[in-house]
Order: sequence, then structure tokens, then C-alpha cells
Amino acid sequence: MYVTQGLRRAAQIKPTAPGTIFRDRRHTWREVEDRVARFAGGLLRLGLSKGGRAAILALNSDRYFEYLLAVTRAGGAVVPINTRLAAPEVQYILEDSGAEILFIDDRFAPVLDALKGRLGSVREIIHLGDGPLPSGMRAYESLLSSPIADVINGDVDIAGIFYTGGTTGKAKGAMLSHRNLVMNAANVIVAFGYDADSVYLHAGPMFHLADGASTLAITAVGGVHAFIPAFDPANFLETVQRERVTHTLLVPTMINMLMNFPKISDYDLSSLRRITYGASPMPDVLLRKAIETLPDVRFVHAYGMTEAAPLVTALDPRYSTLDGPDAGRSKSCGQAAHMVDVRIADAHDQEVPRGTVGEIQVRGSNIMLGYWNKPELTEQALRGGWYHSGDGGYMDEEGFVYIVDRLKDMIITGGENVYSAEVENAISVLDGVAEVAVIGIPDDTWGEAVHAVVVPRVGKSLTPEEVIAHCQTLIAGYKCPRSVEIRNEPMPLSGVGKILKTVLRDPYWAGRAKQVN
Amino acid sequence: MYVTQGLRRAAQIKPTAPGTIFRDRRHTWREVEDRVARFAGGLLRLGLSKGGRAAILALNSDRYFEYLLAVTRAGGAVVPINTRLAAPEVQYILEDSGAEILFIDDRFAPVLDALKGRLGSVREIIHLGDGPLPSGMRAYESLLSSPIADVINGDVDIAGIFYTGGTTGKAKGAMLSHRNLVMNAANVIVAFGYDADSVYLHAGPMFHLADGASTLAITAVGGVHAFIPAFDPANFLETVQRERVTHTLLVPTMINMLMNFPKISDYDLSSLRRITYGASPMPDVLLRKAIETLPDVRFVHAYGMTEAAPLVTALDPRYSTLDGPDAGRSKSCGQAAHMVDVRIADAHDQEVPRGTVGEIQVRGSNIMLGYWNKPELTEQALRGGWYHSGDGGYMDEEGFVYIVDRLKDMIITGGENVYSAEVENAISVLDGVAEVAVIGIPDDTWGEAVHAVVVPRVGKSLTPEEVIAHCQTLIAGYKCPRSVEIRNEPMPLSGVGKILKTVLRDPYWAGRAKQVN
Repeated sequence: MYVTQGLRRAAQIKPTAPGTIFRDRRHTWREVEDRVARFAGGLLRLGLSKGGRAAILALNSDRYFEYLLAVTRAGGAVVPINTRLAAPEVQYILEDSGAEILFIDDRFAPVLDALKGRLGSVREIIHLGDGPLPSGMRAYESLLSSPIADVINGDVDIAGIFYTGGTTGKAKGAMLSHRNLVMNAANVIVAFGYDADSVYLHAGPMFHLADGASTLAITAVGGVHAFIPAFDPANFLETVQRERVTHTLLVPTMINMLMNFPKISDYDLSSLRRITYGASPMPDVLLRKAIETLPDVRFVHAYGMTEAAPLVTALDPRYSTLDGPDAGRSKSCGQAAHMVDVRIADAHDQEVPRGTVGEIQVRGSNIMLGYWNKPELTEQALRGGWYHSGDGGYMDEEGFVYIVDRLKDMIITGGENVYSAEVENAISVLDGVAEVAVIGIPDDTWGEAVHAVVVPRVGKSLTPEEVIAHCQTLIAGYKCPRSVEIRNEPMPLSGVGKILKTVLRDPYWAGRAKQVN
Repeated sequence: MYVTQGLRRAAQIKPTAPGTIFRDRRHTWREVEDRVARFAGGLLRLGLSKGGRAAILALNSDRYFEYLLAVTRAGGAVVPINTRLAAPEVQYILEDSGAEILFIDDRFAPVLDALKGRLGSVREIIHLGDGPLPSGMRAYESLLSSPIADVINGDVDIAGIFYTGGTTGKAKGAMLSHRNLVMNAANVIVAFGYDADSVYLHAGPMFHLADGASTLAITAVGGVHAFIPAFDPANFLETVQRERVTHTLLVPTMINMLMNFPKISDYDLSSLRRITYGASPMPDVLLRKAIETLPDVRFVHAYGMTEAAPLVTALDPRYSTLDGPDAGRSKSCGQAAHMVDVRIADAHDQEVPRGTVGEIQVRGSNIMLGYWNKPELTEQALRGGWYHSGDGGYMDEEGFVYIVDRLKDMIITGGENVYSAEVENAISVLDGVAEVAVIGIPDDTWGEAVHAVVVPRVGKSLTPEEVIAHCQTLIAGYKCPRSVEIRNEPMPLSGVGKILKTVLRDPYWAGRAKQVN
């Protein structure tokens, strides 16, 4: 198995059809394959070693896509860097991965100034922006060289190192093999419903595998990739309309921005068939609004993580409904993807009965080789042949998985377990709430106390008392927040739009140990 | 990857839904998994060794399905035997495979008498029929023992040895690994359009991978398996109606039998969504009749071979049409399946330009490990990392593959290449023709001469002169038959309903060498 197999197929079955579309730059699949083969040749000429790392720090573009395929075609490993990281974090990843080559765009070229040359073993910097060539860099198009054939990699050859800090701790590099990525693509094609007519819009950041999941999948079916540099409601809607986009992946925060975009009804969105969403809980009110606004779109809830390349479960769109007998299913992140084993296990790695909360564990050909340079973490994460996600959840009688919370986010107050998602869902339906995050803060009496951070909608005002009184009408008393912070600035967000609870939590816990299950 | 992964998933997501249906015997997926786990335990108790072979000679049934999964779950290798073979051929396969255990049903138990104990290393015979237990055999249900967990096999562990003689030569055992079968299932799900609502009817023989392709695929999506012992138009139609069958696989001969079945319109076939067909050319007249008779069914033309586990190419159903701009595409067997590399190569294994006839070669994780006990044949078949199919064909500019003929069936007459399929297609549209086969016979002047064997429809009569005159209106003179045999008995057929051209050809070539390209 090799990552560029799908590209070979796309160029064979759709040679003159569009493969990539970025602004007014379009390439057919034959052109894409030719360019990738020639960029791969260029990388070999630059001395990229077998298994050598080539990192990238850039917004979305067709060139980002070409980079992913050219590096793997040449036998190297991609290292896509989270664009939200601060300069020292970028430095850490460059050093830890031992990247030989760095691709960077106009937006992020200034980061290099901040790094003052601390680039680890990077010896070539490729500029893939459209702006003027910064000094000390090579122009992207100058890489084009003689084409090379696919390097047929062994299944377990590393295709990329994907750094994941999630919302806690120091970034770890998940090593994904060619096989991991190809198997994930096979699962994604089925779960997300891709076919030869699919036009996928890369709207979420391409460094993250939530979007990356579709990179190989859409290629293998011979679909079309459209790109916008970063999510922006107007550009998103314009691109959907112009390119007749059929599929995309959005996090709930982005869906919320779309639903609140005043001119959404001005756009022709009739081409849209499916929107996959995940990464954070989707409030019922938002799902309802999305379904009402886009009645012909089917919503697919997906769950995964970098270590699983990433897809683990997907919810068949028929269950993304808030009405009828299947209404409750919209709270689930779905059932195991086709070639993925999923189980819920206790602290001793024994599978627990259906309906019992435990750790979500995953096994399959999509599961990472391990963490780069971290054999102990790897052994711990993959012990017994199962990936230990650290996510808490339960499975119902028909295999639907419900994530109750990150285990480490669970709040233990007075000996009771409180899952913050439940409290957040309750608060999110209060009129005037734009965003909410619930965390545990230290409490001398209860160990932890439930604390809510609430961002009101523009033009609305809320009081802590209102929020608490509202919760008391919906959930048990011990789950209701003891304290509420009304926040008038945006939530701190991770690269994929997840609320960074650590940032909210840290001030309260400075100097204390938060108990982690 | 392991063959029973899909079963695990089906039992997890569809525990109480039907998994297998055979006559009035129904098992839910939970029951199927439990039974398979317990049969696997029983096989271990019988001493089935790791990698040990367990053969089967039986008509289709739910027990055949359980056998396939139980043997692989226990770490053994299945050996499904072609039910059309003569006793000495069965003996050869039992001896060559070194089978330890033989499963046999009521229909084939008498074969054992003919073999008079010449069963190689078989030491246990399991009777999976519903009739009385023959002496010296164990009853199938008595195998049920304590359940065992999945034996997680290495990717390259052999899951089965599938004997293939095709229409020429001695049977060879294609070794397919767990990975080969799982990857094929992944390709089949996409190509045949299976989902959680699919109800698949095993109507073709289960020993053949044309049907076997769907065994794991339908399981992995949590669909339903319905079985009939063997193809029979009335039973087929009744079962489709009763079980609301959505998908099946038929060879053109079976489709022809259905179309000629007088009472077809009496049945409610509204559940049928797709019929996959392959194994031999589909005459236009038959495709047209099938489309007209079943206008809501989409026809999927597939091409493959045992060595590829088996799917190689599939034709998107939109191209199974005889009208409009895509009409010509129905002659194609489609484009490369998702995770399969396909190329057309010359005798030096160099890819030829689009439109040029050459050998169809295949690469991918679906390609067999090799031929059992035949290292030289294996090396030859897999040289250069590509499987050499021996089938002649060309690829058009959009990757559609057209099979012109088995290379060894190509007729060379007066230095011109004549592809028998072309002549057969011409003859098949003559009114009154039921079946046709075109072969090359020795000719002192031309090397070979084109010879047609024609079976008229019931109640019709044809003359050689009519057939030749008809051809002259459609194809070049050198392609027209020089001689025609009007045959009033059925064609000799292989186990999957392919016309056995060797049987037709042999009398002419006795004592002579047929040139093979």
C-alpha cells in the first residue's frame, strides 16, 4: 500500500477532469499527477532521504495538497504543523521531528524571523506562497524536476508524523504509515459517502487530520479538491456556490458561524450533499438550525483522533435528526467505521457491558505505529494491541458510541462524576448563549466544583444567576455550575476550533494537582 | 487485518438484525457470531492446526458461510471445492491442499463413495446437510463447542486456498491471505454499493470468489445474507420477493435464464437495486432485455479473477446503458477498483499506450500470496510485482478496460488477430441464437480458422449459412466464421457458467499444438 496509489487511479480514470481548484488555479488530475511526480523528483534532487521529514507551516492551498503527495511519493514523511502554534512550539516540532526541509507560505514566513534560525536540522526552506520570494528560500515552482515513479513503500514505512497536543500537554508526533493513511481513506470513502462526483471543500485546516481524512479518500474516488486558505463564512459560501461543492467537513464552531452569517440565504448551496462534523459536541439547537437552514444536506457526525489516522466512528446521516424515533441517536458519534474495532474498556482493559462508561479503545490497520521518539508513551498508548484514546464514553446495544467526555475533563465533585458535555448542552440551549465551556475548579469542600464559562451572543447580556437558574430546570443539582464567568472575549481555541479548556482551567489550578482518572 | 473483523462489527452494530437466511432458518448477527466462535472452538478441539486446511464440497447454505468464517477465525485456511468437478479432480485438490478436515453436504456425500477413501490427509469429515448423518461423519451442529476469541492473524497468514483451473489446464491453488480478502471486501463495498440496508442473495456458487467477493463485504456493512442452494430461476425470484433482496451477482447465462423465465413478471422484484454481472461477455441484446425488464435495477459489470481475491475493475452502473453518449461504455468491464492498480502491458511488461491491446496486469493488497506448492508458477505469475492475468485487453483514455479476449483464446488467422468476443457479439444479435462460442480450429492454409458453435433458442432452427451471412453484415470478412456447428445440446459450462471452450476446442486440436501468445 502506498499513499499515492489513489492519485495514480485518479489520473487514470479522470485525466482531464479537475483535480484541484484554488482561487483561479485549476489542475486536472493528469496535471496533478505530473506535478507531484516532478515535485517528488525535485525533493530527491534536494537530497530528501528515505523516510526523511519535510515539514509544512501554511494555510490551505492546492500546493499544500501537492506537498502531501510529493513528499510521500518520494519516500519521505510529511510533518504538517498546526498553524495556531507559537514560535517556540514550531521550533520544538522542527527539532523533535528532525525535519530536513520546511515548506512555508507568505502568512507564516515571518515566524522564521521570530525563530532566529532555530530550525533544528532544516537545511532547505521552500516558499509556497504567491508573494515575493523571501531571501534564503527556494521558490516552490522551481522544485519541479524530472518526474519519478511512485516509490512503493512498505506498509509500515512512515508517511507522516502528525503532532497532536490535543487540548492538553506537550505535542507528541503520531507516526502514521502508508498503510494507516490508505486504510483510513478506505473507511472514509464509505462513511462519508464519497464517489466520483464528489467535490470536497477543504475548509478546515489541512494540517489537521479531520480535514486530512478526506485528502486521500477524495483522491482515490477521483473527486475534486477545492481549497480555501482558512475557514471564513463568506469565502466558504462563495466557493460552495462557485465550485458546486458536494461535501465538506466543519467543526460545530464553523457551522455556528455559518448559521449566524446574515447573508447565507443569498447563496446557491444546492450542490451540498453532506457535511461531516466533529471534534467537539454539537449543541441540539445548532444541529436543528443547521438542518432547518440546509434541509437537503445530510449531516454526518464523525469521531476520531490523529492516532487513528483519524476516523474511528461515524454516524449514518439518517440518525442526525432531532425528531422521530431516532432522535436520541444524534447525541452519538456513530458506530465503528468499517475496518475499525472499537470497544469500551475499564481501567484493566476489560471490555465493559453495553451502557457502561469506560475508555474508548480502538484497534485496526488505521492505528498509528506509535509516537515519534517516545517508546514509553507508545507502549502505554498501544498496550494490549488497542489504542487507548483517553476519551470516556459508552456503547449502546447497537454499537452506537456516546462520548461522555474526555476522561481528564470529567469533574468529580463531592464524589459524583459530572460530565462537562452534559452541563454544556444544558447551558447551550439558554437563549443568548453563543459559546460555553464547563470545567472543574478546585474546591476545598467538594474536591472540585463545576464552573461554567459563558460567552453571550452579540447584543445579548447574561448573568451568572440566570445561567445557574436555567440549569436547575434541566439537570441534577450537583451538576449545576457553582460559579459562572460571563466572558466577553472569544474562547481560546485550538487549531481545529476546539475550546482549549486547559487555558481556562490553568489559572485556577496553578500550584495544585488536578486529579486525572 | 483478519477475516472475521467484519463479523465482529456486524454483531456489534446489528446484534438483533438478521445475518443469514436459508430457507426457514434465520440467525441474527449476534447468533451468527456466537455460532462462528463456537464452531471455531470446535475446530480447535478437532485439532485443526494453525494454517491447517479445511475443505468444503457443498451447495450454498448458511452453513457454508459459517464454515468460511469459523475456519478462518480458528486460524485455519478454507479450501472451497468447485462443485462441478469430477471425483478425481476433487481427490487432486484434497491431496494437493493437504486438507485435514472436509465439510460435505447431502448432495456431495456420494462423491466420497466414488473416491473410495482416497482423501489425502483428511481425517475428519463433517456433514453439513440436513439429511441423515452418513456413517463415518460428524454432524455439523455437534461441532458447536466453547466459543473462542478471534485469532488475530498476521496479514500474510493464509485464509484460504482457492483452486482455479479457469477454463484451461490443471487446477492451481491461489493462496489468499487475510489481508487479501479484507482489502477486496473494502473495494467491493464501494464498487457494488453495499450499505447497512443491503440484502445480498448468494445465487451463484459460493465456492467461487465471484460470489465470495460479497461474503466479507456484506458482513462488514452489517447487511443480510440470503442463500439458495444453487441458481434456479424460480427459487431465485421467490427468494428475492420473500426476503426483499437488494443486491446479487449473476453471470450472463443466469440473467439469460431469468429473462427467458415465463413468469418473471409475476414476482415483486421492487427491492432489487443492483445486479453485478461478469465472468463472461454480456451480449447487447441480453443487457437491453435485462434493462427493459428490470428498469429500476442498476447493472454493475465487474471483472476479476481468483488470484485478485477477486475484484479488479468495476463499471459504474451509469455506464451500463446501450443508449445515449455513454452507450459504448457497456462493453467495458469498468475502471480500476479503488485500491487496485491496473495496467495494460506488452510481452516485456512495459505499459502500452492507451487503446493498445496487451495483457491486463494487476497490483495491490488484494493480489494473492502465490500458488500453493507452485513456486515457479508463482514467480512467473507475479514477476515484477504485478499479477499477469493472461487476459487480453486495452484501456481507453479514461481508464475503462475492455477485455478483448483471453490471450490464449485469440484466433490468429492468416496473420490477422481475431478476438472471439467480437465474433460472438455479432452472432448473438442474430434472431434465434441462444448461446454462441467462437474458437480457432486448425487450418492448413490460414493457420487457424474461425469456427462458431451456436445453440439455437428452443423452437428455432438456424443454418450455418444464415449465421455466416449475418456476420458478413456486421464484421470484417476475415473475422467471419469459416465453419459453423449448430449444436442442439447445452454448451459445456464451468462451475460459474463460463462456456468451457477447451472442451469445444480439444477435438479439433488433438495431436496438434495450438499457438498461444
